[in-house]
Amino acid sequence: MLTSLLLTAGFALMGAGIGAGIVAIGAGLGIGRIGGQAMEGIARQPEAAGKIQTAMLIIAALIEVVSLFAVVVCLLIALNGNLTF
Amino acid sequence: MLTSLLLTAGFALMGAGIGAGIVAIGAGLGIGRIGGQAMEGIARQPEAAGKIQTAMLIIAALIEVVSLFAVVVCLLIALNGNLTF
Amino acid sequence: MLTSLLLTAGFALMGAGIGAGIVAIGAGLGIGRIGGQAMEGIARQPEAAGKIQTAMLIIAALIEVVSLFAVVVCLLIALNGNLTF
Repeated sequence: MLTSLLLTAGFALMGAGIGAGIVAIGAGLGIGRIGGQAMEGIARQPEAAGKIQTAMLIIAALIEVVSLFAVVVCLLIALNGNLTF
Repeated sequence: MLTSLLLTAGFALMGAGIGAGIVAIGAGLGIGRIGGQAMEGIARQPEAAGKIQTAMLIIAALIEVVSLFAVVVCLLIALNGNLTF
Repeated sequence: MLTSLLLTAGFALMGAGIGAGIVAIGAGLGIGRIGGQAMEGIARQPEAAGKIQTAMLIIAALIEVVSLFAVVVCLLIALNGNLTF
């Protein structure tokens, strides 16, 4: 019984670790694309830097909220499924 | 009986963790593309920044709703399937 | 019998979590593409912003409906297959 208790905790922790990694991929793809295009835009029209930066932060915050929420879910799983008894 | 009860909790938590990660990929792809094109648009026509930003937030909010809903589903699974008895 | 009942609950919850994540990918890909092209369109012709935004919302709502429906299916699985007896 204790054996599979440990086995199941292993699967849960594996999922939490892989999930946290995938969250970072998602945030990197999204915020990276926004930031990349913003850099290009500021370089093309430096006088619009203020407007671009404001919009950049607003839209990146949306991805940040989802990503932090998803990492918290993975953190809860990681804190819940402890391996040491 | 208790053995497989514990085994099943592991699979559930693994799915919750990986699912939360995949949600972040979806939000990153979607909001990232919207934000990236919006940055480019503001740089091309800074005088249309207000209109672009308004439309950007409206359409990004649609993705945000689905993503947060999906993360909440994963959170419910993570809180439901606790490993400690 | 109870053994496999518990084992099956784990797989069900795993599917619900991963499924919710895949729903978010679908919504992100679809609404993201619509929103991205709409941003580009408004930047190219700012005087058509109203028309573009109306059409954008109508077509994005179609994806939103399917996505929310699919997330509700995952939510029902998550609420139904509880692990604690």
